Amino acid sequence: MMTQTTPKDHAGEQDVDLTSSALDHRLAEQPHGTTNGHTNGHTNGANGTNGHASTLPELDASRLTVELADPTAREVPEEAVANSGDETTCTDHMITCKWHYKTGWAAPELKPYGPFTLMPVASVLHYATECFEGLKAFRGFDGKLRIFRPNLNAERMLMSTLRIALPGFDPKELEKLITVLVAQDGPKWLPRSRPGSFLYIRPAIIGTQAQLGVQASKEALLFITLSFMPRMDSPPGGMKLHTSPEDMVRAWVGGFGYAKLGANYGPSLLATAEARARGFGQILWLYGKEGYCTEAGASNFFVVWKAKDTGRLQLITAPLDDRLILDGVNRRSVVELFKNRLAGEVEVVERKYTIDEVLEADAEGRLVEAFASGTAFFICPVSLIHHRGKDVQIPMGKTGESGEYTAKVKGWLRDIMYGNEQHEWGVVVTKE
Amino acid sequence: MMTQTTPKDHAGEQDVDLTSSALDHRLAEQPHGTTNGHTNGHTNGANGTNGHASTLPELDASRLTVELADPTAREVPEEAVANSGDETTCTDHMITCKWHYKTGWAAPELKPYGPFTLMPVASVLHYATECFEGLKAFRGFDGKLRIFRPNLNAERMLMSTLRIALPGFDPKELEKLITVLVAQDGPKWLPRSRPGSFLYIRPAIIGTQAQLGVQASKEALLFITLSFMPRMDSPPGGMKLHTSPEDMVRAWVGGFGYAKLGANYGPSLLATAEARARGFGQILWLYGKEGYCTEAGASNFFVVWKAKDTGRLQLITAPLDDRLILDGVNRRSVVELFKNRLAGEVEVVERKYTIDEVLEADAEGRLVEAFASGTAFFICPVSLIHHRGKDVQIPMGKTGESGEYTAKVKGWLRDIMYGNEQHEWGVVVTKE
Repeated sequence: MMTQTTPKDHAGEQDVDLTSSALDHRLAEQPHGTTNGHTNGHTNGANGTNGHASTLPELDASRLTVELADPTAREVPEEAVANSGDETTCTDHMITCKWHYKTGWAAPELKPYGPFTLMPVASVLHYATECFEGLKAFRGFDGKLRIFRPNLNAERMLMSTLRIALPGFDPKELEKLITVLVAQDGPKWLPRSRPGSFLYIRPAIIGTQAQLGVQASKEALLFITLSFMPRMDSPPGGMKLHTSPEDMVRAWVGGFGYAKLGANYGPSLLATAEARARGFGQILWLYGKEGYCTEAGASNFFVVWKAKDTGRLQLITAPLDDRLILDGVNRRSVVELFKNRLAGEVEVVERKYTIDEVLEADAEGRLVEAFASGTAFFICPVSLIHHRGKDVQIPMGKTGESGEYTAKVKGWLRDIMYGNEQHEWGVVVTKE
Repeated sequence: MMTQTTPKDHAGEQDVDLTSSALDHRLAEQPHGTTNGHTNGHTNGANGTNGHASTLPELDASRLTVELADPTAREVPEEAVANSGDETTCTDHMITCKWHYKTGWAAPELKPYGPFTLMPVASVLHYATECFEGLKAFRGFDGKLRIFRPNLNAERMLMSTLRIALPGFDPKELEKLITVLVAQDGPKWLPRSRPGSFLYIRPAIIGTQAQLGVQASKEALLFITLSFMPRMDSPPGGMKLHTSPEDMVRAWVGGFGYAKLGANYGPSLLATAEARARGFGQILWLYGKEGYCTEAGASNFFVVWKAKDTGRLQLITAPLDDRLILDGVNRRSVVELFKNRLAGEVEVVERKYTIDEVLEADAEGRLVEAFASGTAFFICPVSLIHHRGKDVQIPMGKTGESGEYTAKVKGWLRDIMYGNEQHEWGVVVTKE
């Protein structure tokens, strides 16, 4: 950033979509292929220094070093106790892995959970060079430990990492590291005596270079923690949403709403705190003058209604193609389950839709139910939307606790997560 | 975030602009008044816990504790050496101050510069709960130490801090702490033998609560460092800008482009790195289908042209009222200097203007000069804008190094900063 060079012969370049091209360069540079069209990370690309594949060491789970904590030093608290304080309760261990632009990825380390040391001028503390993932490990009713679709989180983490100009990696290696940590701490922290319990897995990567220049960080730290998290999927009476204020937008076309960057979260806290102070659970983020429904808090949002033209049942949710919203793992799973198991009964529609369409469906008695989906909130029934002084009550089924389809898809997912149904999405952790 | 309460009687509330109201609540809660319409911070407001003024301890510079480093342990490097490595060279000391929602602001500490300890689940590392300021301390040609308009930075820091849901404070106290640090390290690190040298002052505040819930941080750390920074105001041949790609927006109406949040910086690094790889210094960020010119990198952007209708000289820059851009201290100073010293010669216009207007002015021979202004880049002449495959060459004056007005305003500012002109903007640090 400190130097200025003479522009290269750029007149002939396609520079209209410089950012897309930047990202494409990165992805094209990756040395390995993966199964889903995503490609693996490599080290040099993240600093934009050149367009050549790196010969520096890659992220490699097989190089993991292990330093174990004293297993008797800490007891596993009850879930309610663990979630009652101001601090997140983490398990005995974490995994960390350092990266440096000159030496590539170091050997990952599994070691006792504990503090980091960062210089005050570290990139992450000033320029939000950070991204993360969230997924869960489950103790099944069949006694097995499972992780839900970890490959999708690992691949999304690579995408977010490149978007925030941090170093790439092979997502399969990240998935292996996640599995190793769950295999290490799962047996103690998700005891077989507590079927139906879960832990929250938080992989993250931060820019650690001690440099105040506004530039891609030349050092990074990848880390994975395992912790307790409150159950948020069943607030009494359902979740109540407050639509976003006219003067505030969470994400925008051309922005980074699709990536799991810290920069999407901090700026939303002020409005969320105000909504909570007024008694609502989350903000329903609208977009544009049209008031398109996008996300509920940091969760995806679904409505079941009867279509205006045909009267047929539809599950509607915001689309991914304008990159406003997160491609949620639960969102994707919900869409796939509705398509596979409710074909002919409920049509799945991914398109832009407005809050006015929701209001109209309500007024015409076509609104069937609504829910939010995300790792933290799982599948959370929505009972009310407050919009510009008006309340839209959303049906909550015969029980008053959840709409029928919401309960159905939640049950399917729960069965897969906790092993009541053997399914490829519930990846069993075997080494325990 | 973990609890859900019943909505209060909200039907009658004005909730259309909930965010503005949230921010207004915060500001109205502040216990002290300031000179410019901004108000001071207080502690409770930042967590949205209530609307009452706090009785917890405020940020108070008079409580500063001092632990000095061995003054002989480090020598002051030459400027070029200090700026040559991968890490920012900081001075001997820093100031830190902790905040906790239950105990308010602790006593600030002046102590040897060194690393922080943060838990892996600290808010700032995941949710970008962070903001900062940048200003400079100058060793004048008259031998005095000065800081340029620090009150403006301190007041903007309060605004940014509240925007990212961190605890408020009295900006006058922050200004005092900045001054104390400069008074401590200035004499050694800006020696009288180096008139015309400067150090970069970086106040920042981060959310340190070790909690993965997406919520306002209940703990925070304010810190101030003093460091070297390269001179970036005179790239050979002037700075070359590349307009932002169509698929990328830096900031947006309803966002937070006006606040100095980390979240505005990290996401811009990818496009900036790509522009640099193509030989450009910064991105000229355009906004909307109209292609409004907003900022040049993280600096404000100015064009001098002859108005299309009258042919008269105008200094044009983006306005503040839509909150897309930063209310830069140098921007404000440039505007004021042009109004005060070039009245009748150059009209100052703060309005939206498009890249097409710039292209048209170029085509019609009305383009006079352009420059970027910011703390890091000071006043930096712009010689070229590359837009959608076309180059706009911008006049660089007789010397080829800077346009006439660019040089003039830069000279005025330099004279104030380095004490060639005694001016209230150049605040002398007396305690050295």
